[in-house]
Amino acid sequence: MKLYLAGPEVFLDDAREIGRRKLELCERFGFSGLFPIDGEPLLVDDAGTLARAIFANNLALMRTADAVLANLTPFRGVSADPGTAFEVGFAFALGKPVAAYSNVPGQLLHRAHAAIGHAAIGAAGAGSAHTFLADGLHVEDFGHFDNLMLAEALEASRLPVVQAQTPTADPFRDLSLFEQTLTALAEARAAGRLAPSP
Amino acid sequence: MKLYLAGPEVFLDDAREIGRRKLELCERFGFSGLFPIDGEPLLVDDAGTLARAIFANNLALMRTADAVLANLTPFRGVSADPGTAFEVGFAFALGKPVAAYSNVPGQLLHRAHAAIGHAAIGAAGAGSAHTFLADGLHVEDFGHFDNLMLAEALEASRLPVVQAQTPTADPFRDLSLFEQTLTALAEARAAGRLAPSP
Repeated sequence: MKLYLAGPEVFLDDAREIGRRKLELCERFGFSGLFPIDGEPLLVDDAGTLARAIFANNLALMRTADAVLANLTPFRGVSADPGTAFEVGFAFALGKPVAAYSNVPGQLLHRAHAAIGHAAIGAAGAGSAHTFLADGLHVEDFGHFDNLMLAEALEASRLPVVQAQTPTADPFRDLSLFEQTLTALAEARAAGRLAPSP
Repeated sequence: MKLYLAGPEVFLDDAREIGRRKLELCERFGFSGLFPIDGEPLLVDDAGTLARAIFANNLALMRTADAVLANLTPFRGVSADPGTAFEVGFAFALGKPVAAYSNVPGQLLHRAHAAIGHAAIGAAGAGSAHTFLADGLHVEDFGHFDNLMLAEALEASRLPVVQAQTPTADPFRDLSLFEQTLTALAEARAAGRLAPSP
């Protein structure tokens, strides 16, 4: 059973090493991991051709995969990497179940409050004051770890988001929650809830 | 022809008014706009049921749509809203063409440098030093307005990202680039490059 391994760790300097360790862990759980090759582009000149090739390669890997295991650790902001979010949406539309982990604890609501700041009390019109932030926009209050569309895609897949309970020292390299997510995927497979794609 | 109007303006206090203006503009160009109802959740108690209903509603609207017009203005960080990114991926997987606008100018590369800061010179290992940021991860250097997967999905759709040339005073309410994107979509329709979904 093939797992597409989405996540912003492709931007690490040692992305290939992290990818190698992820594939090893997949194998230990009886899965075959597919790691995108996003790490390569930075060395090549013809950016336009290369960007198209990476895009096509990632889409082809996702079409091959039976499921997605996404790293939804917040990336340069309060939420997940938008490239990974795109991939979760793409794979979910093709009927691939999606599991995920996040190495940053807490709800989006609380991270957004901490990062953006509260609006003046009484400033909110239509919504609830406690969801209204200093940037003039609301933040969702569903108890979710991140945006509704991501959280509900996992829920609809009947697969978990495995989330850190406390901050992680090296959130883009720590693979302990990745391993926990593989455990959950192996259980789903044993329970017949994870079938190979046709 | 139906356009799904993705974007984080659903989090505005006056989301319904923005939605109404967007639908009016769509009509002026001969399109029928579909605006997600994300604005409602903040008033309701049973968050779990409501989140599932919003998710199901948004997916159903996207399945109905012939194309997506996404607001990819950076949202609480250097990149687009991850919920919108999810929707772009979902719709693209179903073969819907995607057009987009962004009310923030510039490349992702430059925004990320400004927000995160440069790494120490010589710190980069595998990649190019000018893409290596203070958070220990690279940023893409493809000349794109945002993440590769988003930019290439628009490219593959043969539809533009209409991007601000200078900062916009009210980036989540300003609809002038939304209107420009509708112009581009109307041209694509006239050229036969935008067909109704089967």
